[in-house]
Amino acid sequence: MSAPYILTVRDDADLSRVMGTLAAAGLWVRALEGAPQRLLEVDPRSSTTSAAALAAVPGIAGVAMRSSAHPLVDKRAGEPVLLATTAIGPGCRPVLMAGPCAIESESQIARIAEAVAEAGGVLLRGSAYKPRSSPYAFQGHGPAALRWLRAAADRAGLAVVTEALAPEQAGPVAEIADLVQIGSRNMQNFALLRAVGREQRPVLLKRGNAATIEEWLLAAEYCLAAGAKGVVFCERGLRGFDPSMRNLLDLGAVALLSHALRLPVVVDPSHAAGRRDLIPALSHAAIAAGAHGLLVETHDDPAHALSDGPQALAPMNLAALMAPAVHA
Amino acid sequence: MSAPYILTVRDDADLSRVMGTLAAAGLWVRALEGAPQRLLEVDPRSSTTSAAALAAVPGIAGVAMRSSAHPLVDKRAGEPVLLATTAIGPGCRPVLMAGPCAIESESQIARIAEAVAEAGGVLLRGSAYKPRSSPYAFQGHGPAALRWLRAAADRAGLAVVTEALAPEQAGPVAEIADLVQIGSRNMQNFALLRAVGREQRPVLLKRGNAATIEEWLLAAEYCLAAGAKGVVFCERGLRGFDPSMRNLLDLGAVALLSHALRLPVVVDPSHAAGRRDLIPALSHAAIAAGAHGLLVETHDDPAHALSDGPQALAPMNLAALMAPAVHA
Amino acid sequence: MSAPYILTVRDDADLSRVMGTLAAAGLWVRALEGAPQRLLEVDPRSSTTSAAALAAVPGIAGVAMRSSAHPLVDKRAGEPVLLATTAIGPGCRPVLMAGPCAIESESQIARIAEAVAEAGGVLLRGSAYKPRSSPYAFQGHGPAALRWLRAAADRAGLAVVTEALAPEQAGPVAEIADLVQIGSRNMQNFALLRAVGREQRPVLLKRGNAATIEEWLLAAEYCLAAGAKGVVFCERGLRGFDPSMRNLLDLGAVALLSHALRLPVVVDPSHAAGRRDLIPALSHAAIAAGAHGLLVETHDDPAHALSDGPQALAPMNLAALMAPAVHA
Amino acid sequence: MSAPYILTVRDDADLSRVMGTLAAAGLWVRALEGAPQRLLEVDPRSSTTSAAALAAVPGIAGVAMRSSAHPLVDKRAGEPVLLATTAIGPGCRPVLMAGPCAIESESQIARIAEAVAEAGGVLLRGSAYKPRSSPYAFQGHGPAALRWLRAAADRAGLAVVTEALAPEQAGPVAEIADLVQIGSRNMQNFALLRAVGREQRPVLLKRGNAATIEEWLLAAEYCLAAGAKGVVFCERGLRGFDPSMRNLLDLGAVALLSHALRLPVVVDPSHAAGRRDLIPALSHAAIAAGAHGLLVETHDDPAHALSDGPQALAPMNLAALMAPAVHA
Repeated sequence: MSAPYILTVRDDADLSRVMGTLAAAGLWVRALEGAPQRLLEVDPRSSTTSAAALAAVPGIAGVAMRSSAHPLVDKRAGEPVLLATTAIGPGCRPVLMAGPCAIESESQIARIAEAVAEAGGVLLRGSAYKPRSSPYAFQGHGPAALRWLRAAADRAGLAVVTEALAPEQAGPVAEIADLVQIGSRNMQNFALLRAVGREQRPVLLKRGNAATIEEWLLAAEYCLAAGAKGVVFCERGLRGFDPSMRNLLDLGAVALLSHALRLPVVVDPSHAAGRRDLIPALSHAAIAAGAHGLLVETHDDPAHALSDGPQALAPMNLAALMAPAVHA
Repeated sequence: MSAPYILTVRDDADLSRVMGTLAAAGLWVRALEGAPQRLLEVDPRSSTTSAAALAAVPGIAGVAMRSSAHPLVDKRAGEPVLLATTAIGPGCRPVLMAGPCAIESESQIARIAEAVAEAGGVLLRGSAYKPRSSPYAFQGHGPAALRWLRAAADRAGLAVVTEALAPEQAGPVAEIADLVQIGSRNMQNFALLRAVGREQRPVLLKRGNAATIEEWLLAAEYCLAAGAKGVVFCERGLRGFDPSMRNLLDLGAVALLSHALRLPVVVDPSHAAGRRDLIPALSHAAIAAGAHGLLVETHDDPAHALSDGPQALAPMNLAALMAPAVHA
Repeated sequence: MSAPYILTVRDDADLSRVMGTLAAAGLWVRALEGAPQRLLEVDPRSSTTSAAALAAVPGIAGVAMRSSAHPLVDKRAGEPVLLATTAIGPGCRPVLMAGPCAIESESQIARIAEAVAEAGGVLLRGSAYKPRSSPYAFQGHGPAALRWLRAAADRAGLAVVTEALAPEQAGPVAEIADLVQIGSRNMQNFALLRAVGREQRPVLLKRGNAATIEEWLLAAEYCLAAGAKGVVFCERGLRGFDPSMRNLLDLGAVALLSHALRLPVVVDPSHAAGRRDLIPALSHAAIAAGAHGLLVETHDDPAHALSDGPQALAPMNLAALMAPAVHA
Repeated sequence: MSAPYILTVRDDADLSRVMGTLAAAGLWVRALEGAPQRLLEVDPRSSTTSAAALAAVPGIAGVAMRSSAHPLVDKRAGEPVLLATTAIGPGCRPVLMAGPCAIESESQIARIAEAVAEAGGVLLRGSAYKPRSSPYAFQGHGPAALRWLRAAADRAGLAVVTEALAPEQAGPVAEIADLVQIGSRNMQNFALLRAVGREQRPVLLKRGNAATIEEWLLAAEYCLAAGAKGVVFCERGLRGFDPSMRNLLDLGAVALLSHALRLPVVVDPSHAAGRRDLIPALSHAAIAAGAHGLLVETHDDPAHALSDGPQALAPMNLAALMAPAVHA
């Protein structure tokens, strides 16, 4: 997909006619010079096509390309990821996954779980282990928090998504999670990808903040090659240069995964925006771009949240995220 | 907006309580150390607030900030840009602006104008002067094309948006255009900004592909200071690192302009995507993020377009762009 | 250069042996699949090579590539740009170009010219027209400043480099300048590129802060196609994401232009660093990377400079910039 | 460093005089408006200064700033990292660290070790565990390779730097390595940072390809807080947008760490360039920018290297990397 197709043109074909046909199909094409035969290069940033479709164009003698480096990902195109109680991906209705940034206490997560269920949420999120830029910040309540999370979700009729930060957490997390999250900073932590994959659970794989789409697909290939039962991709914003936003949400990538690659993809608008007031707009935009779900931070007492309070939505504002945007 | 507020805390106030109040309001706050008095810094990437709102928080003695470098832009917050036949911006229904990349002939633009009007378009776009990376590419039909454009728009009942590339084109373009476009590569061509501003027309100002939002607002300030009757901002994608997309559409910036700054903002999904198949998804996402309009390339014979054929939509596909997204 | 070579492999050749030969030559190579014949793709980010060198590898039947979009630039590879009193580029000793950001008065530029000459400078820089992000900042003294600049340079025995911001300034600037500067924000201001080119002078072309190397070469092609007598490329830093630096100096691009493309390239360490204390280190690094010169801001009274005082070096510190770095 | 200082100006001071004094010292300063007292903001991208220096400026009543989030890193400013046989950092002569990308066999690493020693190298590098984007690529020979590496280094009189990819490798790697490498993709793998820190060895910490300098320092703080005996920072190139280079080497960051923060910093020119022909120029530039060492890939048979052959230098070309650049 990020590599060009190289087309061999038949000796008897009219070159400009062939190129016009390709342009009309939404393909950016360039003629190459110097080979024994006439070659055309199709820009990988063209509309979706396939080797078979190109080979069928009159005047084309052959279609060359790189072999895919992620065959297991490719094979799943068009298929949703199945959880016990729901499915995420192509053909499915978008799902809401919500919960606190960090699990702070048994009662906190229980309270929030009820609110998430009432708002139409399908999965409960919350971290027992927190990846923090500073070694001196709150790092999570660990194994106890995993138990509180599972119990709260069960009571509220929700599935669970939560993060493993290190290979030795893969087992305990997979035991209680329906969907095991791999965080943005760990997208190329290959030891973790393999450890999580070996648990044979579905994985939610956040995109690294400067990862190409090809690197993201290769990270998913690691999980699948190790045994993961499907991968849900999650876009959460790229490293940008603008000081007025924390992250640069790449909804073009979401559109590409959803519509062109037909892979399950969700969006985390909380980290993307980093500010509460823009989360509704970005949530609506994400769904409109083709996202199959949202992963949202919510907290019922942001004044005292142990992390990321200012970007957490109140539970009462969750339900509106999935509704179609109303323009003012 | 991209500068922090500095708050002075009253001597008798409880610091952690003040900080909790601010966090609950969606503000990221840090204490500073070392001053004669206690100071807090509010991260500019927080939820929207104002000096007045901050000053009203119990325990706050004063609110300092940089003075704005774009007072004329700020003054227009909340106001749409008025054209003869329509208005673009806060409180208005999103508008469709469509047309060919380049104006190729009198009949071409007339044909497309009809199609745009039928699709519900309100403005006709099309370039008489083309900014091309290569000096050897088609550069546009110039003054004649401006006449064809105006005539076609009038016949179809559309307003006109078209680009001026150089100061000496400002006059002729402003004479026929309802909205004078300044292209992405010229966002900091200050001589052009001034020349266009002096024509006292509304301006459509595309964002440079690596421009910060502050630089974009300052470019608009140039136009307004010179006399422009309003500025419609247009996001068309940033320079990104991913080889699978031509540009990186920044819908976070669109949400920020629309919802936080309340300025008129539209999106060009054609250049953002660079590929025809993703234009509908990105159009729906743009509207959901808060865009007040779309600027779209359309062509009725992409096989023979003089520029950018592969990213042009067929006129029959225009109408669906403004409709709410339907999820499959 | 940013496009791959496509190699056709002879039917009787051993593929892995051919690929080993190419790898040993510093080339990243991939086999393509699906064409009627065996094709290899050479990554454009490989060590320098040429179609002729590739065609000479045993087992290669043909070498295809895109035709160059900048033939006039390519033709000048290896040639320095000639001024009346000096030459800049391949085979020449690096030159120092220095002067104030803005020309503030006749006496200021005269004083600084003397200091630049004493420090071993060869060209005097200084702007009569200033590109400023804000319409309310000092914009330069215009035509009068051009006269002061030329007179000061003549008295001190220096050549002149100064910037044209708009097509109508191309004539007056070219009349007094040995090297006409096109600023970073105008790198794709095609009307300006053409107007400056038509003056038939050598051009100093600053790289846009998010311009690819290919776009930079195409901008130079515009100047040359219009008549410019050579182009000196100037790197001044890219838009980066790190808040601790104003710009991200791309010395890899300098090495590429100097060593692989063999084009004249200089570095502006003042804008790259944005801070005075790092200018010496970046200057030494630039020369070591292959830069053919430095363009430096100097001011004898930074406390009262009309622009960019904090990044201007004192004239007495200029001479050390060109000396080899001494490690502490 | 990436946060502004906020200065309180005395009531009796002349504001423009205070601002001039600060500008003359290389500081970018802005007045804030609205506080009970007059405040100035010093841009963090100014020349190096300190709270003490600012407080000493006539007219300044107080200096406020954020407290540092990485006190252990700050405390080591100016100190080199000590290995058994050498020292790396401020005040030390730059060191050469070289070796193959992957350790392929006992005889390969022994042969290369001899060549590295002859070229003046001080540390031998080579990976027993390889971080590979694809799960199907060669992943390294593991524990056996660690033994071969140590034996080869001992015979050649070299110290050892090699990478740990996962927490459970920290022990075995630290047992044989003088300097434990943490790779770019793992810069925010906090479990690994802690596990490596606990081994109480010096650490070589590569910068993530989109990491801010602040995030890099915080990652080092993790290592030091866990027990690491010093951190050598290693710049290896950022994610850039230009398709003609693999990575964008940030020598501005190297200058900042070396000259402004006075921390030990080295450069990996092999990954930065990704192409063999530019490694010498970038090596010379790195040393000139202030790097305290180079980490270079070398291979004696690139045609058959198991990874990254095209970017490996021949051992005979190593010695010239540390020599001052000679300009042609």
